[in-house]
Amino acid sequence: MESASSAPGALPYYVALSQLLGLSVVAMTGAWLGVYRGGIAWESALQFNVHPLCMVIGLIFLQGDALLVYRVFRKEPKRTTKIVHGLLHVFAFVIALVGLVAVFDYHKKKGYQDLYSLHSWCGLLVFILYLVQWLVGFGFFLFPGASFSLRSRYRPQHVFLGAAIFLLSVGTALLGLKEALLFELGTRYSAFVPEGVLANALGLLLAGFAAVVLYILTRAAWQRPARAEEQALSMDFKTLTEGDSPGSQ
Amino acid sequence: MESASSAPGALPYYVALSQLLGLSVVAMTGAWLGVYRGGIAWESALQFNVHPLCMVIGLIFLQGDALLVYRVFRKEPKRTTKIVHGLLHVFAFVIALVGLVAVFDYHKKKGYQDLYSLHSWCGLLVFILYLVQWLVGFGFFLFPGASFSLRSRYRPQHVFLGAAIFLLSVGTALLGLKEALLFELGTRYSAFVPEGVLANALGLLLAGFAAVVLYILTRAAWQRPARAEEQALSMDFKTLTEGDSPGSQ
Repeated sequence: MESASSAPGALPYYVALSQLLGLSVVAMTGAWLGVYRGGIAWESALQFNVHPLCMVIGLIFLQGDALLVYRVFRKEPKRTTKIVHGLLHVFAFVIALVGLVAVFDYHKKKGYQDLYSLHSWCGLLVFILYLVQWLVGFGFFLFPGASFSLRSRYRPQHVFLGAAIFLLSVGTALLGLKEALLFELGTRYSAFVPEGVLANALGLLLAGFAAVVLYILTRAAWQRPARAEEQALSMDFKTLTEGDSPGSQ
Repeated sequence: MESASSAPGALPYYVALSQLLGLSVVAMTGAWLGVYRGGIAWESALQFNVHPLCMVIGLIFLQGDALLVYRVFRKEPKRTTKIVHGLLHVFAFVIALVGLVAVFDYHKKKGYQDLYSLHSWCGLLVFILYLVQWLVGFGFFLFPGASFSLRSRYRPQHVFLGAAIFLLSVGTALLGLKEALLFELGTRYSAFVPEGVLANALGLLLAGFAAVVLYILTRAAWQRPARAEEQALSMDFKTLTEGDSPGSQ
């Protein structure tokens, strides 16, 4: 996507900015739910509040950080980096699952209809794609079966789909935030009540976090440099037409 | 972002898919406004409907197509491509401006508050960034003053910001769609009324258009190949430490 613009030395500052934004998003979601929505609990009406908090921690912050693993640990052995990447996604998924159960359980107790809104349709799509992406990624990159050439061809698709799922997660969060505001505030929203202003700021922070994560991901100079032995394998591969896996690194 | 995966021959199919999705978005927005919201007019309550239609045509369809110009016309002279790219953005901006005036005028006539919602904050941000990006892009790439080295360093930032503005536009459209649904349908939304289902499908199509445009943009193999003379200039540049503009191509 780019040539030699971003100096490698600037990467830590962008990573720090992404963490500052990501943690601000989590903290502000907690503050919103604590100050204006009565806090968090598994019983009573507060069970709903588990949903936004878990989704923001799992599908926004942890998912975003999982994408950055290959940039942050760009000098570590590839296998370690892969495992950290895969594990972060597992944590993200499990936390998001708690958030999903919370909202379905809350709807059931209240007798509300499920899955009618655009937010819920997008959220369901995120969940399905996330699970498929994880399983296919595991099969190709961590399970020892896939050949080197197959991995090379699948990698760019995996990276693109990962970024797309992350962006759809952020979009879904924005839709959910808006829904929660309009349901609760109604016409008071247009009177610039503090909750509305806080939630709008949270929405902009969410978009900012996504933008910085995406910026870091798309800088060519910040990509993980292939180490000597990986480079050798990849050279070997280029001389063969269809090479078998030369053993996982 | 990727190596040698996507075959160059597949580009036309992806471009065709993007146009199919983009035109479906425009048609479905028109159908939604025509069937469920009484159509379009500059006077009366129908003036509001000008807003979503103009925004979808300008800031979604035309903006998306403007980003694809360098891929679709990848074999044309660079200067022609630049002008088409810049002009498409001008059309997009002017149409969006009509949509902006429509909603402010409608709010004024109705005595509604302006700029209180997350949708409006994101929309305002899109407008400011779009204008700045266009002016800076014009200054660097079409105005003859900027040196070759300056252009090379600014290009990746321009590409990233362009993609980010496009994605924020799509996110803003989703927020606006959700707002329009909740204001009008209220609790009927949860009864799966046809308008709600149609609008949800429109939301998914919007996300699909964004995904395909982004996919085309990020495939390395589909980027515009540097022509012989451009390549020569770029080689020249590499041997100089800080070269002056070798004349615009």
